Amino acid sequence: MKNTRILLASRPVGLPNRENWQVESLESQTPVDGEFLAKVLYVSLDPAMRGWINEGKSYIEPVGIGDVMRAGGVARIIESRHREFQVGDHVVGMSGIQKYWISDGQGVSKVDPDLAPLQKYLGVLGMPGMTAFFGILEIGKIKEGDTVLVSGAAGAVGALVGQIAKIKGCRVIGIAGGEDKCRYITEELGFDSAIDYKSESLYPAVHKACPKGVDVYFDNVGGETLDVALAHLRLNARVVICGAISQYNNTAPIKGPENYLSLLVNRASMQGFIVFDFAAEYARAAHEMSHWMSEGRLQSREHIVEGLETFPETLLMLFDGRNQGKLIIKV
Amino acid sequence: MKNTRILLASRPVGLPNRENWQVESLESQTPVDGEFLAKVLYVSLDPAMRGWINEGKSYIEPVGIGDVMRAGGVARIIESRHREFQVGDHVVGMSGIQKYWISDGQGVSKVDPDLAPLQKYLGVLGMPGMTAFFGILEIGKIKEGDTVLVSGAAGAVGALVGQIAKIKGCRVIGIAGGEDKCRYITEELGFDSAIDYKSESLYPAVHKACPKGVDVYFDNVGGETLDVALAHLRLNARVVICGAISQYNNTAPIKGPENYLSLLVNRASMQGFIVFDFAAEYARAAHEMSHWMSEGRLQSREHIVEGLETFPETLLMLFDGRNQGKLIIKV
Repeated sequence: MKNTRILLASRPVGLPNRENWQVESLESQTPVDGEFLAKVLYVSLDPAMRGWINEGKSYIEPVGIGDVMRAGGVARIIESRHREFQVGDHVVGMSGIQKYWISDGQGVSKVDPDLAPLQKYLGVLGMPGMTAFFGILEIGKIKEGDTVLVSGAAGAVGALVGQIAKIKGCRVIGIAGGEDKCRYITEELGFDSAIDYKSESLYPAVHKACPKGVDVYFDNVGGETLDVALAHLRLNARVVICGAISQYNNTAPIKGPENYLSLLVNRASMQGFIVFDFAAEYARAAHEMSHWMSEGRLQSREHIVEGLETFPETLLMLFDGRNQGKLIIKV
Repeated sequence: MKNTRILLASRPVGLPNRENWQVESLESQTPVDGEFLAKVLYVSLDPAMRGWINEGKSYIEPVGIGDVMRAGGVARIIESRHREFQVGDHVVGMSGIQKYWISDGQGVSKVDPDLAPLQKYLGVLGMPGMTAFFGILEIGKIKEGDTVLVSGAAGAVGALVGQIAKIKGCRVIGIAGGEDKCRYITEELGFDSAIDYKSESLYPAVHKACPKGVDVYFDNVGGETLDVALAHLRLNARVVICGAISQYNNTAPIKGPENYLSLLVNRASMQGFIVFDFAAEYARAAHEMSHWMSEGRLQSREHIVEGLETFPETLLMLFDGRNQGKLIIKV
């Protein structure tokens, strides 16, 4: 049984390219006592991956040169020498970008394919869903009547953030790139309005969409968008720093937010978070979000690309915004 | 009776200069019913003044062209048609930069010259004291054992911030300009260590002084110092944005903090505040700080310059750091 896996060959400068990756095909190993072997069905592609392949520790150790690329995946167990996992079980965990995965079960959860399509466990019921849920509720501390501005609003996290804010009675404005995405978030997801950063000038657009200012800004992109949002904070506003996709491939220094003194003038706060810190509460969040899904109040979509070998090119879709929904590779 | 007052003649670009001010001498007015007339004894010079003379509203209306420059002052009432204030009372309030002050009593408090020298009511018992107290306790949320880094550490606010943090059981490192100031904060005020930004390279100096990182950074200066502090945050750190004196006279755009993504990696927050929001609690703070002063645990000093007319030049001392302690003009 051949395992195909994608290794990090070198650290990218700017956008990752083909040379940074190595496709390797080798005999699949067999599990020892306390391990299982699983066939990987779907892997998740996330903006955070760009940070994981930089040198130096951030909130997690970097992927080493020559290591299988880190990724969340959904898999089916085909051989088990682990007491808690049986052949046929479906599981979610950090499988890496490979076809067969051997694990000791640490950080692995069973999932039920009858409750939701398997790919949902990498999206709304996975890391992006948890990120949206805890980010907007625990860090953004939204309350009814708040004006909430979200960037990356058609992305895996942003689309959920906006819908959760709507469920909680907020007015929600999304920033996304292109007409299709803007129509998607307003017509299908129920955002109150959308700003197309590819065709509109951001400052006047935010000014018009949020005439009284912004109570909560959920930032997935950084750069100019963060600065424009800072210029529109209301008193006691909260800025949630979830990501900065506009800056991840920079070869020049990151652009710091020039308007950060708006935090002072408006007694506002800007706070970062890492979803892993909420791991103990994932079950509660998944339960609540499943409930909203069953009521038809929380929608999600996945953008599925076939073929593990497409990983180097598929990853780039995140950085030029070509994906429409949670980006996933079907193995 | 001649009143001398200093008016804002034009809005400065960069550092304020002589041409931005007009000294006016005119007959002092007399109070009408509900007003008092007071002789101004001391006026307070604060970095915030630079923001007040910019065009456009921030947290407070700008000083208008042709208006008396806004300033806190201590004064003695010499004529009163106000029920609550009597001739001979000493009061503190926004007197403006002038020799005689007519007020309707709004925002004015009586002070007792027997409890503390009058100038203390513009420093440790005035706005800088309140700023330090609420900023480090309510926004910084310091707790015993925290490592606290303070910039502008020999300034009116910073010196108090560091001492309050010491009283609360923190390890305190101050950043100040010059040997004298560094010696002052360590030898006289009890800071654990000092970094002289004029003779040391900031990044390695902070790295060495805070080997385990910083729990709370209290920022008075902005610019590179803020960036270096962000690069040394610990998990769940708090950054208190009190001011950004390094940026106030910029003619170029403000330098945003490039390292702001450290907030994400470290689950940290950066929060601004305005001391006026805590006005209802000033009395409690003054009481607590007076107590610390009487125990000899909280020291403060004032840098007093004589002569109202020196205002345009004296103000500049704040921006090149020539003042040693709270800057005050004796009228």
